[in-house]
Amino acid sequence: MNIAMIRAAMERSVGLVRETPLLSAPGLDEIAGRRVLVKAECLQWTGSFKFRGGWAAVTALEPAVRARGVLAISSGNHAQGVAMAARLLGVPAVIVMPEDAPRAKIEGTRALRGEVVLYRRATEDRDAIGARLAEERGLTLIRPFDDAEVIAGQGTCGIEIARQARAEGITRADVLVCCGGGGLSAGIALALAAEAPQMRVRTVEPEGFDDMARSLRSGRPERNPRLSGTICDAIMTPEPGRLTLPVLAELAGPGIAVTDGEALRAMAVAARHLKLVLEPGGAVALAAALFHPGEAAGDAVICVASGGNVDPEVLARALRE
Amino acid sequence: MNIAMIRAAMERSVGLVRETPLLSAPGLDEIAGRRVLVKAECLQWTGSFKFRGGWAAVTALEPAVRARGVLAISSGNHAQGVAMAARLLGVPAVIVMPEDAPRAKIEGTRALRGEVVLYRRATEDRDAIGARLAEERGLTLIRPFDDAEVIAGQGTCGIEIARQARAEGITRADVLVCCGGGGLSAGIALALAAEAPQMRVRTVEPEGFDDMARSLRSGRPERNPRLSGTICDAIMTPEPGRLTLPVLAELAGPGIAVTDGEALRAMAVAARHLKLVLEPGGAVALAAALFHPGEAAGDAVICVASGGNVDPEVLARALRE
Repeated sequence: MNIAMIRAAMERSVGLVRETPLLSAPGLDEIAGRRVLVKAECLQWTGSFKFRGGWAAVTALEPAVRARGVLAISSGNHAQGVAMAARLLGVPAVIVMPEDAPRAKIEGTRALRGEVVLYRRATEDRDAIGARLAEERGLTLIRPFDDAEVIAGQGTCGIEIARQARAEGITRADVLVCCGGGGLSAGIALALAAEAPQMRVRTVEPEGFDDMARSLRSGRPERNPRLSGTICDAIMTPEPGRLTLPVLAELAGPGIAVTDGEALRAMAVAARHLKLVLEPGGAVALAAALFHPGEAAGDAVICVASGGNVDPEVLARALRE
Repeated sequence: MNIAMIRAAMERSVGLVRETPLLSAPGLDEIAGRRVLVKAECLQWTGSFKFRGGWAAVTALEPAVRARGVLAISSGNHAQGVAMAARLLGVPAVIVMPEDAPRAKIEGTRALRGEVVLYRRATEDRDAIGARLAEERGLTLIRPFDDAEVIAGQGTCGIEIARQARAEGITRADVLVCCGGGGLSAGIALALAAEAPQMRVRTVEPEGFDDMARSLRSGRPERNPRLSGTICDAIMTPEPGRLTLPVLAELAGPGIAVTDGEALRAMAVAARHLKLVLEPGGAVALAAALFHPGEAAGDAVICVASGGNVDPEVLARALRE
């Protein structure tokens, strides 16, 4: 991965990937005690940044390979990103999803005409299911973060951040990014290194699932002890990506962890002050900006609101809190 | 009012009024049976389009007059628009609000450092309170819609719609606008007449409070029989504006009315498919696009999501429905 790949992905994205706004509100600045800018990736097609990587990866395939179709293994946002890219390109998409994925994400994937294959987390091997389907139908697997083209696609978000922040008069700031496997964080870090070298990515994860923060601290890949027990389903990954960790080890600052309660409160703040619907995993970076002000440096902080595909009950719960 | 005033307001707005995105989602198109584009004015500063008119009106005042301060009489969104404009210009803002206004709006106005004066709808005369305050303190009253500069400011939204729709390949469409006194509708109608003459404004109101639709039908100002009984507080006005009705009688198509239930369902759809928080009065245009498809013409319909300042309980209720 390098900036040339990100720029190439950006060129393939013109008119298709949405340039999402960098939003702000006086109410946020008051809570955080500094200027807060929110990159509203929940307004991206499919409701999360994942369309960027899906589009970049599917458009990078050779036409004959692409025509046979693509496969994604995902509990939700990556599924929708790949399904939307495939739909726009008129190629088949098969999505392997856990049967307990948020309903909004299963329905969203089906609405995009993705063929959803459900599996049981406890008893079935999703990778084996995916491998069988890929083999049988000649599908190409699009990985959610350990794929150079996917990371390049997510990096287009970083190019926009650099440009939009400059227009706001900001060239030096921590950029807080919701982090699962690290594809978005690594892509943005690579983009900022080239386009806004005084900005630094800070990964944000749920407490107890901060494999990336611990890996950045120890210098080697650390696994999460558990794979359930947070409402931040979108960013609950077993361990950092093989491609993403080295990038972040070189370019990112220390990782930050927030509680589920803070993520829910950030969702309520986003609804009230920004009129944005966020999902828990898409709200952790804002939660860090609002409720962990001591952990980020500078007069302004930028955070990526990475997705908004939340079941209505969970949003209603956040609004009550 | 004329297009020159709107263009002048646009020039005074550069870098201050936010250009809000024109959003879409496959899920909306499916419900409506045609292409739907949503002008997300809930993402405007203060959470509604009202900042456009407030900014235009306050910046149009003579500096010496402006310095003494401004006054608004408003149950909410206009209050916040004027308070934010005054705050940015460093002049006092006094806002007369009913004590039963949505809490989100009272708190929002206070957070913007507006001085809030509450009155009882049943027993007190808000206009008398306003007149006394204006007299005592030398404040200038900024009317919510019957003011040429306010209408010109709202018209800047129409200039953006014309430009953004063109970029999407749309030059002919009905533009559905949430309508209270008609300031936004009239401003957009004037802007479109100059910038996109094949687009036509359609006002949308709550059933039972469709004074504008009835006035457009009868050709003279019609009053609403009641002044309470809809959740669409933002657009519950006694009668059309004196300045706005003639503009709309000349330029707009027939008005549309939707039920409170449809407004709530549109809020749920906006949260799910667009990741936007809308208030009931800000969702009626989307409700018309989704649930009254026969009442608008064309292959595509544009609707203005005019505001998102909703109490969390009301949003939670919409999500349950």
